[in-house]
Amino acid sequence: MYKERVRNAALWDRVSSAEDAAKLIKDGMTVGMSGFTRAGEAKAVPMALAERARTDPLKITLITGASLGNDLDKTLAEAHVLSRRMPFQVDPALRRAINNGEVMFVDQHLSETVELLRTRQIGPVDVAVIEAVAITEQGGIVPTTSVGNSASFAILAEKVIVEINLSQSDQLEGIHDIYIPSHRPMRTPIPVVTPESRVGLPFIPIDPDKIAAIVITEKLDSSSTVLPPDDETRGIAGHLCDFLQNEVKRGRLTNSLQPLQAGIGTIANAVMHGLLDTPFHNLKMYSEVLQDSTFDLFDAGKLDFASGSSITLSKEKYDDVFPRLSDYKSRLILRPQEVSNHPEVVRRLGIIGINTALEFDLYGNVNSTHVGGTHMMNGIGGSGDFARNGYMSIFVTKSTAKGGLVSSVVPMVSHVDHNEHDVDILVTECGLADLRGLAPRERAELVIAHCVHPTFRDQLRDYYQRALARGGHTPHVMEEAFAWHTRLAQTGSMLED
Amino acid sequence: MYKERVRNAALWDRVSSAEDAAKLIKDGMTVGMSGFTRAGEAKAVPMALAERARTDPLKITLITGASLGNDLDKTLAEAHVLSRRMPFQVDPALRRAINNGEVMFVDQHLSETVELLRTRQIGPVDVAVIEAVAITEQGGIVPTTSVGNSASFAILAEKVIVEINLSQSDQLEGIHDIYIPSHRPMRTPIPVVTPESRVGLPFIPIDPDKIAAIVITEKLDSSSTVLPPDDETRGIAGHLCDFLQNEVKRGRLTNSLQPLQAGIGTIANAVMHGLLDTPFHNLKMYSEVLQDSTFDLFDAGKLDFASGSSITLSKEKYDDVFPRLSDYKSRLILRPQEVSNHPEVVRRLGIIGINTALEFDLYGNVNSTHVGGTHMMNGIGGSGDFARNGYMSIFVTKSTAKGGLVSSVVPMVSHVDHNEHDVDILVTECGLADLRGLAPRERAELVIAHCVHPTFRDQLRDYYQRALARGGHTPHVMEEAFAWHTRLAQTGSMLED
Repeated sequence: MYKERVRNAALWDRVSSAEDAAKLIKDGMTVGMSGFTRAGEAKAVPMALAERARTDPLKITLITGASLGNDLDKTLAEAHVLSRRMPFQVDPALRRAINNGEVMFVDQHLSETVELLRTRQIGPVDVAVIEAVAITEQGGIVPTTSVGNSASFAILAEKVIVEINLSQSDQLEGIHDIYIPSHRPMRTPIPVVTPESRVGLPFIPIDPDKIAAIVITEKLDSSSTVLPPDDETRGIAGHLCDFLQNEVKRGRLTNSLQPLQAGIGTIANAVMHGLLDTPFHNLKMYSEVLQDSTFDLFDAGKLDFASGSSITLSKEKYDDVFPRLSDYKSRLILRPQEVSNHPEVVRRLGIIGINTALEFDLYGNVNSTHVGGTHMMNGIGGSGDFARNGYMSIFVTKSTAKGGLVSSVVPMVSHVDHNEHDVDILVTECGLADLRGLAPRERAELVIAHCVHPTFRDQLRDYYQRALARGGHTPHVMEEAFAWHTRLAQTGSMLED
Repeated sequence: MYKERVRNAALWDRVSSAEDAAKLIKDGMTVGMSGFTRAGEAKAVPMALAERARTDPLKITLITGASLGNDLDKTLAEAHVLSRRMPFQVDPALRRAINNGEVMFVDQHLSETVELLRTRQIGPVDVAVIEAVAITEQGGIVPTTSVGNSASFAILAEKVIVEINLSQSDQLEGIHDIYIPSHRPMRTPIPVVTPESRVGLPFIPIDPDKIAAIVITEKLDSSSTVLPPDDETRGIAGHLCDFLQNEVKRGRLTNSLQPLQAGIGTIANAVMHGLLDTPFHNLKMYSEVLQDSTFDLFDAGKLDFASGSSITLSKEKYDDVFPRLSDYKSRLILRPQEVSNHPEVVRRLGIIGINTALEFDLYGNVNSTHVGGTHMMNGIGGSGDFARNGYMSIFVTKSTAKGGLVSSVVPMVSHVDHNEHDVDILVTECGLADLRGLAPRERAELVIAHCVHPTFRDQLRDYYQRALARGGHTPHVMEEAFAWHTRLAQTGSMLED
């Protein structure tokens, strides 16, 4: 059956077992693997590599698009295969290895990894391992449910291993748009001018001689772990939709808004769900991962087009969407993450970016990554590509965590991923703060009035009043700036008394 | 004499005194004024406004390109004319008013202000006051030594006041390239593909009916306050030039490097001076402000072309350059700061950005703006436009300040303007840390080994070792993270004991 998928017959003799293919990967190598938000990762070769490491220890630098599914980061971390990992991950076992210093994790803006590789500031990539639906007659690689960094990995690597996944729908062919920016300093403009611009090829063009092995697989992508909306996430969505409707009333936006980006996860997905109950129409997405909400918005007739770098769905939504993927195909594009997140395109299209904060502070600085200021959660992902360069940058979070003992709104964030310059709108279930055009002292008043949970409001106001007495553009009581975090570490709660 | 400069005779009857022109500015208005890095600011009308405020108090929101010369920010702040100011300033009196909460200062990425105005997320601009060399036959405004945000102010404002400055060289006409990005979401690519791309008009095109008053002036721009290189800034330049030469040896760069951006000020200017003694050649700049070093590099035959948004020179250099400006004219472009700093162009050209830090930390986070975490110095300026989007982001600073009592390399920066994701190379006179592709723990080792002053090295290493014992991706002793800053506030020194 794979011969229908490997359409260049000269490549049939390169079909091999995952174990044999994995032997191309040697100790000390840098390996680029497909996979973005648990979609379209190479599945068999990394498993074979972890298996081999039990008896034949080896360490590699692993670069992907973003997070891997099928517990691959867990398996590789527990097999001690990873010496260095970039640019994103979401796995608890790998997270432990990162936080204890076993794995050197390089937390990067998702648009930037391949720029660094291309200019040899990192790398080079020795072997690329790419999941594909098919190999074309010319030897082009047709990715599956994600593009991520796969195209540049395959183009830059010395050797390429292709995993042909027979369980991935052949309807995916034609959905991808592979465009690689030209070399600098003579680069020409990226010709994407609307979310639906098709500017490249439907496959990754490489010299088929570089394809060193082809492995046939059948394992499905992991399902999304996104939770359904709850009262709080519905509250967040409600505040944001009200705000956007008010922007329309004020003549700043039309009912088609601007192209939308939403970060991965439960809250961003819930916010997108919230758009179902608004008067907005003819919406477009120019985002990274397309989640359940994208297809709900299509089905409701709200969304005209969605461009992303991957599709990651719940089991139910997958079973609903993939059998009729052809119905959606003319309204979907999957791009390299360098293009889905490219500063040039994000600024040109005027994206409204909606991303999740771990915590934010009085002045609108956002921590997306570090628990307690020190321990990595997942990584910054693409949020910085959108927050810095878009039309409007929105951060959402529930106002508390850990049963109300932890406030997500703090005097000073314990780690800064997005600073006040890049944060326009903050939303919790308590309310929304519109920080545009405001100075820090004005921002603080709005955050206290609208975003912090009532349990923590007096405590936050007290801090701010005492900070204000010391003066400054951005008032702080520096020796107390992290008192809430140290109290949490010592007592399990940020609450005073 | 002004009639040669105001070439549209229908406008001659609009010539008026600065006092009369200033009457167009009313209490509560938003005013956009020309001026960028003390170059090309409107001079007479703001002075008249400050004078009037003595007897007729008024408050305005003042938006400029960047900093103003001729003590205008001082005069306006002391006359209590400013209720809100954006996006940048450098004046001690205004700084005091910002830090005591009298003036609401909005510290913005310099490329973004006019995007916010254009989409009415801030503003609108009621009156624009623009210094010009001339008004063309069609009523186009020819700016002087800076473009800054002048073009969009004039296009967006209801009324425009033009200050024709007879002392500004008429040789400036033809040096400007006024290109305004089209409206989103239907924006087309900005056609700048090299520093020397000319893509717009040599004047600001507006309806001449909007020109409500023309004021004739003769006052010169203020001279640059940049100090000549000293041992420490020469040391910084030396480390950086060695590093860049090594990048050439490794085949990552050619001897023409990539287009260069250098922030305003003594250190960045000294670094550019350092290029005089290197084998680099056929260099190009794509920067904001063109300082003395730009013309020294031209004269030495090192620099082929320079694109910026302003020219700010010392008295000596001004007297040397301006009488023979025509010699340089074919190698210079002045652009709107939206274009000189545009993420699209910065990424496309692959800029090497060199900017100054107030302080940086173990992990490569940079504070560019806040003294002691609370008090505004100048503002982030354009550094974020370049650091986020360029080919390589370099930050420079002397390792100590205040006679050695303050370390510029600290456990945790007291304010974050540029985080680890945006900082590739750190340089002090002690040495250089190349942070590319490294995890935080690896970054810390390099910063301790190469950047911190020997006086503070043991103290910093001690902090890091104790942080490391607590684990985490980015180890910290959170309750001590600002201990150096609080010690400084209490004792006048960051040194222990």
